[in-house]
Amino acid sequence: VGDQDRIPLVQAINDYKQKNTARFHVPGHKGKEMDNFLSSLYPFDVTEIPGLDDLHHPEEAILEAQRLAAELFGAEETFFLVGGSTTGNLAMILAACKPSDEILVQRNVHKSVIHGFILAGAKPIYLAPMIDPVTSLPVGVPLQEVKSKLQQYPRAKAVLLSNPNYYGMSMELLPYAQLCQEAGVPLLVDEAHGAHFGFVDGLPSSAMQAGATTAVQSTHKMLPSLTMSSMLHVQGELLDRARLRQALAMVQSSSPSYLLMASLDLARSYLAHEGRRDLEHVLEMVRDLRKRIACLHIPWLKVVQKGSDYDFLDPLKITLRTNSADFHGFVLKEFLERQGIFPELADQHHVLLVLSPLTEQKELDRVVASFSKLDRSLEIKADQIRDIPSKLFIKEQFFSPGEVLNRESETIPFEESAGRVFAEMLIPYPPGVPLICHGERMDQETIDYICQLQAKGCHFQGSHDTSLRTVKVVKE
Amino acid sequence: VGDQDRIPLVQAINDYKQKNTARFHVPGHKGKEMDNFLSSLYPFDVTEIPGLDDLHHPEEAILEAQRLAAELFGAEETFFLVGGSTTGNLAMILAACKPSDEILVQRNVHKSVIHGFILAGAKPIYLAPMIDPVTSLPVGVPLQEVKSKLQQYPRAKAVLLSNPNYYGMSMELLPYAQLCQEAGVPLLVDEAHGAHFGFVDGLPSSAMQAGATTAVQSTHKMLPSLTMSSMLHVQGELLDRARLRQALAMVQSSSPSYLLMASLDLARSYLAHEGRRDLEHVLEMVRDLRKRIACLHIPWLKVVQKGSDYDFLDPLKITLRTNSADFHGFVLKEFLERQGIFPELADQHHVLLVLSPLTEQKELDRVVASFSKLDRSLEIKADQIRDIPSKLFIKEQFFSPGEVLNRESETIPFEESAGRVFAEMLIPYPPGVPLICHGERMDQETIDYICQLQAKGCHFQGSHDTSLRTVKVVKE
Repeated sequence: VGDQDRIPLVQAINDYKQKNTARFHVPGHKGKEMDNFLSSLYPFDVTEIPGLDDLHHPEEAILEAQRLAAELFGAEETFFLVGGSTTGNLAMILAACKPSDEILVQRNVHKSVIHGFILAGAKPIYLAPMIDPVTSLPVGVPLQEVKSKLQQYPRAKAVLLSNPNYYGMSMELLPYAQLCQEAGVPLLVDEAHGAHFGFVDGLPSSAMQAGATTAVQSTHKMLPSLTMSSMLHVQGELLDRARLRQALAMVQSSSPSYLLMASLDLARSYLAHEGRRDLEHVLEMVRDLRKRIACLHIPWLKVVQKGSDYDFLDPLKITLRTNSADFHGFVLKEFLERQGIFPELADQHHVLLVLSPLTEQKELDRVVASFSKLDRSLEIKADQIRDIPSKLFIKEQFFSPGEVLNRESETIPFEESAGRVFAEMLIPYPPGVPLICHGERMDQETIDYICQLQAKGCHFQGSHDTSLRTVKVVKE
Repeated sequence: VGDQDRIPLVQAINDYKQKNTARFHVPGHKGKEMDNFLSSLYPFDVTEIPGLDDLHHPEEAILEAQRLAAELFGAEETFFLVGGSTTGNLAMILAACKPSDEILVQRNVHKSVIHGFILAGAKPIYLAPMIDPVTSLPVGVPLQEVKSKLQQYPRAKAVLLSNPNYYGMSMELLPYAQLCQEAGVPLLVDEAHGAHFGFVDGLPSSAMQAGATTAVQSTHKMLPSLTMSSMLHVQGELLDRARLRQALAMVQSSSPSYLLMASLDLARSYLAHEGRRDLEHVLEMVRDLRKRIACLHIPWLKVVQKGSDYDFLDPLKITLRTNSADFHGFVLKEFLERQGIFPELADQHHVLLVLSPLTEQKELDRVVASFSKLDRSLEIKADQIRDIPSKLFIKEQFFSPGEVLNRESETIPFEESAGRVFAEMLIPYPPGVPLICHGERMDQETIDYICQLQAKGCHFQGSHDTSLRTVKVVKE
């Protein structure tokens, strides 16, 4: 059992700084306190010199820091990620799949998962998510869908689920993990939004607790580490660890940032100590916040409650839902920003507030205070959003995403793309779920739906022309 | 023409900090000054919120910062890299090569280049480097070798050179760029160690100045940016920019670190102002240092002078060469470290000191002072190192690196591996050049040479078992 009071990597960096050495090694700032806002940081921004270990072959401080993290997060082994959850998703897919291997994957995944299939040359078999009727957001995949696809594709090398979604809607993964265990395939979980899961009562259990093989967590999103610092947790024998290490060495920098790694060590230490108490405290504050917003009696504004098609709603994600046609999500977001309250994102109907154990009562007070300025008398419009049909996510697939990049492509007007096989993704943001992926055939229903989203001010990612005037398709 | 006095990204981050907002967005530290050495940094560690632009679709502060960098470094377009030069190398290879495409590549490249071939499914055609007779280090590829290979492989999609090498030995790239221009293929340059090139008289010209298509520079290595922050410079029409952007989006985090990006903006601003003067100053200090070391008359210790098989020796790389059998490179490195002088690396015969514009006179004085304590009377041993035959680098290639990962591999004792096709790399460090790559057949001469290096204390990277007791080979 490790000593969670230790922060071994921070200690090692600090020890080196104390030595006051003449640095004839990289980085080029030589640890000087330059005259800018990073000033105090440069002396701690070090590299693989004696005493400071090596992320790609950890034997000392980094190994101890990773082991302490593994212990706390319930993994057999934890890898620090300096390239964000992006590199964790790429690496676990590269480890699980050789070219042409099939992999079962929830369709509403982050684009880095699709990129993983491209780099691995893998063939994704998409699993349709359920659609939450209240918010029209895609959530988890029914267990039965995974079961039947596992039978239909007995050679599939892994199941990849994304849990929770961006809005904190999540499934209990235990039965999924058991199903995969029985089928002898690894359950890979993109748990980017769930680094805090499982630490106190009132939070969903984590993928590791449920028995998943791997979990990629954006530590930086919900815990206090620096942006782009993440962790990959692993347990069991279903994923080849040697291939995983090789894949991590391929997609991660050979000059990894010690600041990012140290911030992971600090975040783990924080969570092992005051972090739990802070989490409990913020859960209380959230219960109070929900009551206070309800007491304001703004008829067109609600905080989204847990729906029936998923198992948990992360209390640290506050999704505000507006039923006013004029004061829609984007307007509400700007209203808040003018008062110095910066949300995570907005869509036509929602504004998402992301809390963390570091959120303070006075910040929630600012939200309530700003809401008290809202006009209660706005007309409530009938819901104009059309539910995304689940089948919109599942299209005829002509090539695997990787095969598409082997082929000639051409650029055509979006409105003429029905029937064409796409050579890029179209990802409405939010919620960031691709409506079409590389290798899939476009249909008129999806074109109409995308035009509807665009008219509402939704932005698109993943394509070369984010205005969607033109799109890239495979040459016929 | 941009205003090099501006530091637009730093300004945007600072503006956001000044607003003193309630942060209901990621990262989870919420900009609080936590009680640790990163304390003052958290408020500046931000994400893609209004006013802070988006690395993957830059339109505001990041775009301006990249344009200022492009102007200063002589590129048409510059991309900030938050995943180190590793991601730059991967992206330019993925942009240039589709699966099975041939690419001509200098054999003494960084492992990230080989990883690029694996991820792209490309087929490298290796070009043998010259071997510097004084140091036995591999340097550049003869121009004639590139010319004849371009004729032999007319379908090759690109030429990739690594220049300078780790020790600052470099080629004038102008004729290589002209050759590639005539052949209509892009010249891709891994210029990781040359971010300072071309800025003052006395430094070699840069790859961009020579007319290369792309140059990947580890800004953090020789200029004062944070570790893992790099740049990819591009010019001309020979590389598809849309594919390059797509590749960068695949291998770089979708939550890029603003601290790393801001440090690139700061390093560019520094170089445009006091950096040039500091570079000139350090070049003077280096001339003085060389004289002072020579005056110490230590018969077994020399500073390596420019050799005849390459065009330039970077003055900021001081390679110390020891001809004492007892006081060899590793001993000299430990001797320096005991006095608080930390070199970049050592091998049996050399210790490499890496300077930068931030190196101070008092640090060089520490080096000279420590040398005055060295024993002048040590016996000079005949050179026991055997030159690496250039042909050791060029082996029979059975599969491309990517194909190897499709195949079953097995683990066998290293000494029994002659005749077997390797499924991993063996990379002696230093100098970090693979002696065998994925898909190549091992021969007895290389085994003997590796055993010789190991006996001298050389470490190995790239393989699953760095002790080299076992190696991974393709199953027959």
